[in-house]
Amino acid sequence: MPRQLAAEGLGTALLLATVVGSGVMGVALADGNDAVALLANAGATAGMLYVLITILGPISGAHFNPAVSLAMAIRGEQSPRDALLYSAVQGLGAVVGVVIAHAMFGLDLFQPGTQARTGASQWLSEGVATFGLLLTILLGARHRPTALPALVAAYIFAAYWFTSSTSFANPAVTLARALTTTFAGIRPMDVGGFVLAQFGGMFAALAMARLLGTEARRPA
Amino acid sequence: MPRQLAAEGLGTALLLATVVGSGVMGVALADGNDAVALLANAGATAGMLYVLITILGPISGAHFNPAVSLAMAIRGEQSPRDALLYSAVQGLGAVVGVVIAHAMFGLDLFQPGTQARTGASQWLSEGVATFGLLLTILLGARHRPTALPALVAAYIFAAYWFTSSTSFANPAVTLARALTTTFAGIRPMDVGGFVLAQFGGMFAALAMARLLGTEARRPA
Amino acid sequence: MPRQLAAEGLGTALLLATVVGSGVMGVALADGNDAVALLANAGATAGMLYVLITILGPISGAHFNPAVSLAMAIRGEQSPRDALLYSAVQGLGAVVGVVIAHAMFGLDLFQPGTQARTGASQWLSEGVATFGLLLTILLGARHRPTALPALVAAYIFAAYWFTSSTSFANPAVTLARALTTTFAGIRPMDVGGFVLAQFGGMFAALAMARLLGTEARRPA
Amino acid sequence: MPRQLAAEGLGTALLLATVVGSGVMGVALADGNDAVALLANAGATAGMLYVLITILGPISGAHFNPAVSLAMAIRGEQSPRDALLYSAVQGLGAVVGVVIAHAMFGLDLFQPGTQARTGASQWLSEGVATFGLLLTILLGARHRPTALPALVAAYIFAAYWFTSSTSFANPAVTLARALTTTFAGIRPMDVGGFVLAQFGGMFAALAMARLLGTEARRPA
Repeated sequence: MPRQLAAEGLGTALLLATVVGSGVMGVALADGNDAVALLANAGATAGMLYVLITILGPISGAHFNPAVSLAMAIRGEQSPRDALLYSAVQGLGAVVGVVIAHAMFGLDLFQPGTQARTGASQWLSEGVATFGLLLTILLGARHRPTALPALVAAYIFAAYWFTSSTSFANPAVTLARALTTTFAGIRPMDVGGFVLAQFGGMFAALAMARLLGTEARRPA
Repeated sequence: MPRQLAAEGLGTALLLATVVGSGVMGVALADGNDAVALLANAGATAGMLYVLITILGPISGAHFNPAVSLAMAIRGEQSPRDALLYSAVQGLGAVVGVVIAHAMFGLDLFQPGTQARTGASQWLSEGVATFGLLLTILLGARHRPTALPALVAAYIFAAYWFTSSTSFANPAVTLARALTTTFAGIRPMDVGGFVLAQFGGMFAALAMARLLGTEARRPA
Repeated sequence: MPRQLAAEGLGTALLLATVVGSGVMGVALADGNDAVALLANAGATAGMLYVLITILGPISGAHFNPAVSLAMAIRGEQSPRDALLYSAVQGLGAVVGVVIAHAMFGLDLFQPGTQARTGASQWLSEGVATFGLLLTILLGARHRPTALPALVAAYIFAAYWFTSSTSFANPAVTLARALTTTFAGIRPMDVGGFVLAQFGGMFAALAMARLLGTEARRPA
Repeated sequence: MPRQLAAEGLGTALLLATVVGSGVMGVALADGNDAVALLANAGATAGMLYVLITILGPISGAHFNPAVSLAMAIRGEQSPRDALLYSAVQGLGAVVGVVIAHAMFGLDLFQPGTQARTGASQWLSEGVATFGLLLTILLGARHRPTALPALVAAYIFAAYWFTSSTSFANPAVTLARALTTTFAGIRPMDVGGFVLAQFGGMFAALAMARLLGTEARRPA
């Protein structure tokens, strides 16, 4: 178990360092064109997800996300206790990742987020984003498990763009992004609504995956 | 059959939510540089297509496109009745996807498209775009079926750019995009010409695929 | 043989339609930022190359390039006569592709190129670009043949950016691009120097591939 | 051994020609938007890394990086003598690549770098960047060796963005980039700090890879 927890903590830290760091770099260079900054942010995040899921997946499953660990517990693929331990190190790793990003750019290490992200449209976005992410993981694992790293990377790239919230889709990520005032930040008071919406999307994905059939089919 | 229809409806809805949502986001952030918005739009659409075809293909074939379902019926790989049912849920899913995109961005749920897309150059573009898409699917399925998700994603990314119409290449998508005034929209009165051109391209692709040989060859 | 020639002609036509069409679209939308236009141009070209080599490779080898066909003849993998026939339909297809791109954007169908591309730096660029392309193909075919479509696509994306000529690296492409005044064009009087440099790069790649060992090694 | 050394020298030269050349091209076209230039620079570098590691990996292992060769020697997978020879040709190849890039763009062949890159944040960035690169290689080789070219390419794309130093992560690359005043350059006096930080990151990655378990597991 310690190896698994180390992998989850390390992976979530590197993921958050990438999300926050590439946002800082993008805004610093993009000359006010936030779409260019978001292209860089989305591309860097996708690239890092592909790497982390490939190299750490065989060790811990590469959840990096309490909504994923909880879903695995609900499906009986992980014990509730392990899901809780996973979630704890994911949260810790996420915070460490944000701090590392700040240090790499010479910024204050802790900075309470100031970017307002609230309201029905944002919550719907987080619900849809997490629904899609979980569906990608559940059906991807069923139909083409070796492609999971590329699937999650491609999904998140798309979700950064097609939702109005830029798709946090992850409670640990949401919590940690409340500690930065940079491009990727969120106000601490808005974290609760995001996390509730994310769990709503997770439950919808579990139901949809069941509806679409649970028998394993392996076409390739 | 219900599982297949659910997969077609769900997939087409998520595809349209991505096409329309990423267009809205791109334009909102791109500071007037429409090429950056289209890069985001094309990248997000390609990423989502890769995901949806991988995770839903084993269930329904992942057509998401009446021109594809009709082509499969013509080739005898699907009954005409199933092609019709597929097309109906594709159309329904596409409309739902546009509505979800509007809701995620806090826009009016239904908005008749106002973007003029008509004339010989646009129709030629749709014909070429659909010809290429169908050829990609027909020959890809023959020579390297496991690569179909990546092939369709890569083709559509290219087709957004090399045609003057940004490559709708899909009657259900065209219909649904007549319900948005945003970046990805089209005037309702221009839908007919696009759909006719798309079916023209489809028939040309069927003929070309036959010309290039129908015997299965599996190099890898 | 007719099937092979049809595949070479069709593929080169679609390739050129993409190169020229995405250049026109990129410049039209990029608001004067030519780097954004070239990103779109390079991304669309790479996507289309990945598709065309995957779906047509099993039929004709997917050369789409007289320098490749000639190299195959020199290595004895194709008869000189076939290399000549391939080159002829590649040239024809390339011209057709340029005309189709012009038609899709409502431009004059034939327009002698006006963009000056000449001088030692440009020729060195074409030599290096073609050297790299041929090396990618020769060593890729030796070590990982199923990855050839992705290899050529990734190489050309990079080569658009790291050479000062944006890497034509293909005599048929060079000839056809002399028929457009758009982003991707070249003056007819500059074609000769480019083609000579390309064949120089091809011969260098043949020598380097021999130096690096000809015995087949298949690691994966 | 000569074949291996030729592959390492050639690969590092093409890598540096790409890093420097695409930086020059990006800045020349990006109209002052450095984020667009860095997108091009990162995309071109990633594309070329994918190609070079695929086609030269079966010959030499495709290190192109003294920190990688030294790590292999420490792990006993390469003799110290070979690691030294590799490092020498990597340094030589890197310098040749920079000179070729300058020649392709008609610039002075040698130009001592003038871009200041120093201080704790930059050194932390180089340490983190090299830690991540080595971890990607060590765990990637353990869990999914055929994906190494894509893994390194995706990692470097991300690392260009999430570190404040744009991730040199390679002593030979750092040395050679001290010979250019262009986008990718570094002051000669700043090379030492970067290289020290890179070796620090390398040792941290060796320790982390050991912590995460050394037994081979091959999931796919």
